[in-house]
Amino acid sequence: MFFINRLPIVLTRKLKSIRMMSTKLKKSDPSFPTKYFSGIQPTGDIHLGNYLGAIKQWVDLQNKEDLILSVVDLHAITLPQDPKELYQNILRMTATLLACGVDTSKLILFQQSQVYQHTELAWIFSCICTMARLAHLPQFKEKSATLKDVPLGLYIYPVLQAADIMLYKATHVPVGDDQLQHLELSQDLARMFNRRYGLTFPSPHAIVTGTSKIKSLRNPSKKMSKSDPDAKSRICLTDSADEIARKIRKSVTDCTSAITFDPDERPGVSNLVMMHSSLSGKTVEVILKEVEGMDTLQYKSLVADCVISFISPISQRIKELMEEPQYLRNVLDVGTSRAMEIASCTMEEVRGKMGIQLLHTEAHELATSNRSMYKM
Amino acid sequence: MFFINRLPIVLTRKLKSIRMMSTKLKKSDPSFPTKYFSGIQPTGDIHLGNYLGAIKQWVDLQNKEDLILSVVDLHAITLPQDPKELYQNILRMTATLLACGVDTSKLILFQQSQVYQHTELAWIFSCICTMARLAHLPQFKEKSATLKDVPLGLYIYPVLQAADIMLYKATHVPVGDDQLQHLELSQDLARMFNRRYGLTFPSPHAIVTGTSKIKSLRNPSKKMSKSDPDAKSRICLTDSADEIARKIRKSVTDCTSAITFDPDERPGVSNLVMMHSSLSGKTVEVILKEVEGMDTLQYKSLVADCVISFISPISQRIKELMEEPQYLRNVLDVGTSRAMEIASCTMEEVRGKMGIQLLHTEAHELATSNRSMYKM
Repeated sequence: MFFINRLPIVLTRKLKSIRMMSTKLKKSDPSFPTKYFSGIQPTGDIHLGNYLGAIKQWVDLQNKEDLILSVVDLHAITLPQDPKELYQNILRMTATLLACGVDTSKLILFQQSQVYQHTELAWIFSCICTMARLAHLPQFKEKSATLKDVPLGLYIYPVLQAADIMLYKATHVPVGDDQLQHLELSQDLARMFNRRYGLTFPSPHAIVTGTSKIKSLRNPSKKMSKSDPDAKSRICLTDSADEIARKIRKSVTDCTSAITFDPDERPGVSNLVMMHSSLSGKTVEVILKEVEGMDTLQYKSLVADCVISFISPISQRIKELMEEPQYLRNVLDVGTSRAMEIASCTMEEVRGKMGIQLLHTEAHELATSNRSMYKM
Repeated sequence: MFFINRLPIVLTRKLKSIRMMSTKLKKSDPSFPTKYFSGIQPTGDIHLGNYLGAIKQWVDLQNKEDLILSVVDLHAITLPQDPKELYQNILRMTATLLACGVDTSKLILFQQSQVYQHTELAWIFSCICTMARLAHLPQFKEKSATLKDVPLGLYIYPVLQAADIMLYKATHVPVGDDQLQHLELSQDLARMFNRRYGLTFPSPHAIVTGTSKIKSLRNPSKKMSKSDPDAKSRICLTDSADEIARKIRKSVTDCTSAITFDPDERPGVSNLVMMHSSLSGKTVEVILKEVEGMDTLQYKSLVADCVISFISPISQRIKELMEEPQYLRNVLDVGTSRAMEIASCTMEEVRGKMGIQLLHTEAHELATSNRSMYKM
């Protein structure tokens, strides 16, 4: 979440520095009501790891908190995209979120590029951000090191992320720990803007959800990832029952036949148990008791049944929704209106404070003054 | 013009390379109707050099060509601005342009930040631009070399310039020669976008107008500049008659009493003659004949009269207009509507081609198809 699918980079960082940041990020700001913001890129199919690591949490969150969710297509285009595919992916991501239980009566779901204020605020933040601040971000350093021609978008997208969050004055942002430093940039930009123009933005808190615990089916030491070239390494929400059964049957396990849970020594079978537990809601202990005596092949078949019975209705619903592009478009358009209502209030305040527009009160005063509009 | 007041940098560049560029820039593109775009920053008072180097040419151009003129406040904020001052400067620039003869029935005049499509297209261009391309721009190299903390805006503003131009599919852009390489970037970005998504943008031609020939009154080897700390070095369009007379009386000349025109050997008095000629419309030869026998002091008084009689009505009109902020606001708002009409067409095309929105025709097709919108 918070722009998952961005970069397939796992950052190795000292635990100490992460702990320091987490403390720093938890300071609360009483001036702003609690509001959550998260974004997801419209790039290809969602797999079980994405679902459990992000979407499931949004679905839980929407019942309790004020949540704004964006399909962040402006981030997707920082890498080359096929236009037709991109448009389909925007619809598919919308369909997937709805099929997973995202309920637009409970949250705001919208397409980022339809709310023009995102790039407006990003430009304004560009004017208060320094180049050095961006160049030190580890994701940029790591990614750009391997590229000959570094696209500008790769360098400045954290500034757009800051705008995404601040436009809604979000106070809480679910992030994976590889995004913590980007959230720190958002905090810095909010602080710098507030210092220069008066209190406007909250300092957003990172809600570190950790990445999903679901591993690759082909190499259970790595996490399940959409960037893995081997499609058999992941189960997508659009996979058919046959595909799911085949992928789980062929998943890498070890030579021991019994079903135990030991992620370090037996990562393959433990991954299946974890998947089984996450989707069924049963604890690992309960599962282990239930499957006592089964061998790996029998257990794989059981897990496959569980995954299929979980995914089938979702994948069926995605298929149905994808046959209704106008409905999906309408869902996004309604979300756009709702998001834009908030975004335009924020931008009116921002522009007024910066002097590129009169504040609403000043404009009203001017309009109702005795000065004739067309005296000249 | 084309964002005058941006950077007080004079670039020394080999004549050969400039000539090469000019040739390159002149290739014409028959697919797009001729349209001029230029921008001016709303930063402080306009001086005679600005007037002669830019505004006068726009006023001439508006009678012959399709011209779009923008008060580029989004560029102004790449450097810190006092909000109240910035707002006043936006109005003052508008008043100044109108007072100088800019006629909104002949051109479109608008405030950049009110047309949100500028930052939208700038983001899209950021995604096709590389970092190296920007870092090599000489204005950036020169300016950033002296700064400890380089603001991001200073680095990426040429991308916003490209968006400013391309949003209106401008084919011609009046530029000073220090802006030629920024226009080359616009051409590159247009080309790259066209290559990826099909012909969309013209390759804009630079109309190299050369910078104004008016020099500083205190140091006639430098051009008249608003960044000169000595206010006596320039004559502003808002100066009073007394101020103008005093500045010209105190202008640096040499010990020779006669009035001749020799910019190399006698830059001070030649600058006065040039000013005199530019404002009166008389040739240098005619002037020299008219003032034969005068000494420098007498001539200064004559030039002062000429400048005052030129500037007085303008400065009076600026003052009157500044007392009608609602009228100025209205002028900009009308311009915004007209600019936005063009800009939104361009962005609809751009977004459709990129796949972040349906092309108009596709959207229509979808809306009128048999699919029920709320079937789900």
